Amino acid sequence: MTTVTCDIGISLDGFVAGPNQSLEDPLGKGGELLHRWMFEEPDENADAIAAIVDAGAFVMGRNMFGPIRGEWVDDWTGWWGADPPYHAPVFVLTNHPRPPVEMQGGTTFYFVTDGIDSALEQARVAAGPRNVAVAGGADTVRQYLKAGQIDVLRLHLAPILLGAGERLFDGVSDLALEQVAVSSSELVTHLTYRIVH
Amino acid sequence: MTTVTCDIGISLDGFVAGPNQSLEDPLGKGGELLHRWMFEEPDENADAIAAIVDAGAFVMGRNMFGPIRGEWVDDWTGWWGADPPYHAPVFVLTNHPRPPVEMQGGTTFYFVTDGIDSALEQARVAAGPRNVAVAGGADTVRQYLKAGQIDVLRLHLAPILLGAGERLFDGVSDLALEQVAVSSSELVTHLTYRIVH
Repeated sequence: MTTVTCDIGISLDGFVAGPNQSLEDPLGKGGELLHRWMFEEPDENADAIAAIVDAGAFVMGRNMFGPIRGEWVDDWTGWWGADPPYHAPVFVLTNHPRPPVEMQGGTTFYFVTDGIDSALEQARVAAGPRNVAVAGGADTVRQYLKAGQIDVLRLHLAPILLGAGERLFDGVSDLALEQVAVSSSELVTHLTYRIVH
Repeated sequence: MTTVTCDIGISLDGFVAGPNQSLEDPLGKGGELLHRWMFEEPDENADAIAAIVDAGAFVMGRNMFGPIRGEWVDDWTGWWGADPPYHAPVFVLTNHPRPPVEMQGGTTFYFVTDGIDSALEQARVAAGPRNVAVAGGADTVRQYLKAGQIDVLRLHLAPILLGAGERLFDGVSDLALEQVAVSSSELVTHLTYRIVH
């Protein structure tokens, strides 16, 4: 059976993005500080970084794919350049149909307009025996948590306070978790939980 | 110089107490689940438990001392029985004067009516060369965090969601933290932060 994983950076006060997300601040004001560990301590955190993209297929929300709202109006192909780090099919939740976009390195973005269950099912089929990863952002992760569809939640806890923004667990309180692994470097604590269904 | 520490249990969604605190539920609905690690894994967590009461004096809010509101009306002497675990002076913040209450084992409760700065100063003097611990609850810790008076914050993160209650960091966003230690057992992750003043 497919394991559905989710990796997400979170502040000590529970935010996975700061306020006022924009093209310049895709994670909102202060949100990039959630990921200092990735960029400043890549060696210490090599295993955690590798695990984030170790999946046979991905699901993400439209806000994670890009800052565009409403109809697709240009040739936006994500934040990640010509060769995104996914190297697998990525199913993007949207209300606006668009043909698949094939990138370099094996990443293809598929645009799913019929909901989170459909996107996850398409990702399961595409992943074959491998994991499916729910890549974010906050609203998408919350929807899958509420639907009981995530099996392994890996929080990357940064020693910062954001004060405002998107809370990961807003409206999500009915989850039973087992702590299965904890590790840390100076700029982050990696917390792995199994969600008990 | 005195080091001011604070130990507090916190849920994954950021609550240090559940909703509806009462005599039966001093930590609110579900709040006792924050401390399963203390009672179910005392050996694995012996060092963390010992550190909580390793101080020369303590400060706590009145809600942590007891469920009584308004004037003192009975002989309430705290939740902890005849020999509280503090074994040192404990300065209780209150608006209602009361003579000191001497317990067994070296714990004496002093009731401070002139504010958090006064309580902390009295605790510093009483502690001598040892640490002062801000023992809780949520509102008291928040006040000292906002006042920049806490030097070492030790969060004991339980793998639970409470969904509602008292958030530790509500209104506290202007803190710079350095992560200095992380350890864990099955039921908790101990996170130690130095607060940069």
